[in-house]
Amino acid sequence: MSDFQKKINLIREEVNRELASLPIPQKPGYLYDPIRYVLKGKGKRFRPLLVHLMGRALDANSRGLMNLALAVELLHTFTLVHDDIMDKDDTRHGQETLHQKWDESTAILAGDAIFILAQLKVTLVETHVTEVMNYFNQVTLEICEGQAWDKEFENDLSISESNYLDMIDCKTGALLGACAALPAIMEGLSNETVQNLDQFGRLLGKGFQVQDDLLELISNPQQMGKSLGSDLAEGKQTYPIILARTNHEQEWNKCISQFMSKQNEDSMDIVKTFLEKTGIAEETITRYESFFEEAGKVLHFLPEEKRKDLDAFIQLIKNRTY
Amino acid sequence: MSDFQKKINLIREEVNRELASLPIPQKPGYLYDPIRYVLKGKGKRFRPLLVHLMGRALDANSRGLMNLALAVELLHTFTLVHDDIMDKDDTRHGQETLHQKWDESTAILAGDAIFILAQLKVTLVETHVTEVMNYFNQVTLEICEGQAWDKEFENDLSISESNYLDMIDCKTGALLGACAALPAIMEGLSNETVQNLDQFGRLLGKGFQVQDDLLELISNPQQMGKSLGSDLAEGKQTYPIILARTNHEQEWNKCISQFMSKQNEDSMDIVKTFLEKTGIAEETITRYESFFEEAGKVLHFLPEEKRKDLDAFIQLIKNRTY
Repeated sequence: MSDFQKKINLIREEVNRELASLPIPQKPGYLYDPIRYVLKGKGKRFRPLLVHLMGRALDANSRGLMNLALAVELLHTFTLVHDDIMDKDDTRHGQETLHQKWDESTAILAGDAIFILAQLKVTLVETHVTEVMNYFNQVTLEICEGQAWDKEFENDLSISESNYLDMIDCKTGALLGACAALPAIMEGLSNETVQNLDQFGRLLGKGFQVQDDLLELISNPQQMGKSLGSDLAEGKQTYPIILARTNHEQEWNKCISQFMSKQNEDSMDIVKTFLEKTGIAEETITRYESFFEEAGKVLHFLPEEKRKDLDAFIQLIKNRTY
Repeated sequence: MSDFQKKINLIREEVNRELASLPIPQKPGYLYDPIRYVLKGKGKRFRPLLVHLMGRALDANSRGLMNLALAVELLHTFTLVHDDIMDKDDTRHGQETLHQKWDESTAILAGDAIFILAQLKVTLVETHVTEVMNYFNQVTLEICEGQAWDKEFENDLSISESNYLDMIDCKTGALLGACAALPAIMEGLSNETVQNLDQFGRLLGKGFQVQDDLLELISNPQQMGKSLGSDLAEGKQTYPIILARTNHEQEWNKCISQFMSKQNEDSMDIVKTFLEKTGIAEETITRYESFFEEAGKVLHFLPEEKRKDLDAFIQLIKNRTY
C-alpha cells in the first residue's frame, strides 16, 4: 500500500469515527433512527478527504479542517437523502434509501436535520466564520439550482452537452469547489487563491460527474452500491445519454425501448453493449479524463511538493470503478 | 387605529417589502417559481413582528434586527412547506400549498432553498454572529424534533397532555423563543436575559399553538386560510382532541366516526358543536390564556415602558380569530 493510500485510509477512518460520534440522541426515533442509519452508510468520503488534503497543502488549522470536512459530508448526505426521494432511487451506498426503508415524510425530515447538523459544524470554525458560512450556504443554494436544472431537463430531448455541463457545475462541481476553497477561506487566504481552488474543485467535480454518469450505466451494480439505470428510467439527460441521443438517434431509441420494456440487469447489458459498440463509452472517458487533466493544471500555482497528494487524489478518483 | 396597531402595520409592510425584494432569480423556474409564490402568501408575520418589537425594547441594531426578522420568517416558511407535505395539507395562507400546486419533489427542493435563504440572512448579522448562528440552528433542530414527535404521536391514543405540551414546546415554542432571544444574543446581553426572553417566547408559543389547535377545529375556514379538520383526519393529538378523548371517550369516538365518514363542512360543525357543548372549547381557551398570562409575567424584568408593546403583542395574538 502506498504512503498516499495509507494517508487516505487514516483520514477516512478518522472522518468515519467523527461521524459515528456525532451526538445523535436516541429520541425521537422518528427523526434520529434514520439519521443514524444513513450516517453508517458506506460513503466513499471523497469530499471530506479533499477538504483534509487541501487543508494540509495549505497548512490550515487541523481542528477547523475536521469541522469543515464533517460539514461538507453532512451537506452531501442531506442532498442525497432529498435527491433520492425526488429521483425515486431505492438503493444508495449498498443499502436501502431512507424513503424506501421508512417513508417520504421521514426522509424529508431526516434530510432537513442532517443539513442543520452540517450548519452546526460550520459554526465551530473559529476563523473567518462569516465568510465560511456565507460561502457554504451560497454553494448549497447552487446545489439546489443544479438539482432543479436536472429535474427540468428530465425527458427534455433538446438539452445540449453545454446545458448539461452547466447543470453539473452547479449540482456536483460547486460542492467539490467548496471542499477545495473552504480551507483557504477559513485561513483568510487571498481571493485569487480561493478562486483558483474553487475552479480546481469544479473541474474535478465535473470529471467526477461525467464518470459517474457512465458508471451508472456500465458498472457492476453490487460494486456501485446503487440501483443502476435509474437515470434512464427517469429520463435524465446525462453525458453518455446526450451523446447517444445526438449521434445515434435511431439506434438509441431502439435501445431505450428495449430497456424500458424490461428494466432488469439483462436490459442494462443491452445498454452497456450499445455504449461500447458505438464508442460512446470511450468518448465519455476521454471527456472526463480531460476534466481531470485540466483540474491538475489549475493546481500548478501551488509548489510541487504541496500538490503531490492532490494529484494522487485526482488519480484515485479517475481510477475508481464504482 | 391605535398607535400600536399603526406600528405593527408599518413593521409588517416593511417585512413584506423586504421579502418581496429578496434577490430571487428567474431561473431555474423549477426552484424559484414556487419560492416566489410561497413568499407572496398572506402570512401574518407574527414571528418577524416579535423580533422587531423585542429588538426595539432592547435598543438593538435595526439593520441586524431586520436580518434576524427575515431569517426567522424564512425559517418558518421552510418548515411550513415541508410540514405541509408530511401532513398532506392542501391549503395554507389562503392559497394552495406548494406540493399541491406543483408536486412533492418541487416542494422539497423549494423548502430546502428557503432554509438556505434564511441562513444567508443570519450571516449578515454583524455582532456575535457565531452565537447567533449556533442558537438559530439549535432551535431549527428542535423544531425538527417537534415535528418528529408530532408524527410519532399521530393515532397514538396514549399521548397525554404533558407529552403534547413537550411536543409543542419544540415545534412552536422554540421558534418564538428564538424570535425573543435572538436580538439579545446579537447584542451580547447576559445569559440570564437571553434565558428569560427565550422562556417568554416559549410560553407565548405554547399559548399560540393551543389556540391554533382550537381555531383549526372551530374557526371559519375562509378566514383561517387553510383547510380545517386536517388534524382530525391525520389522527393528530392536539390539545382539544386529547381533552375530548380523555374526558368524553365514548361520545368523542361517535363524533369522530361521524366526521370521518363525511369530512366536509357539515361534519366540522358536528365537531364544533361537540367541543362547545362539552366545555372543551372553554377549557382550551382557559389553558391558552394562562400561557399568555405567564408569558406576560416573565417580561416583568424589563422596565414597564419597554414592555408596553410586547404586552400589546400578546393581546394581539390572544384576540386573533384565525
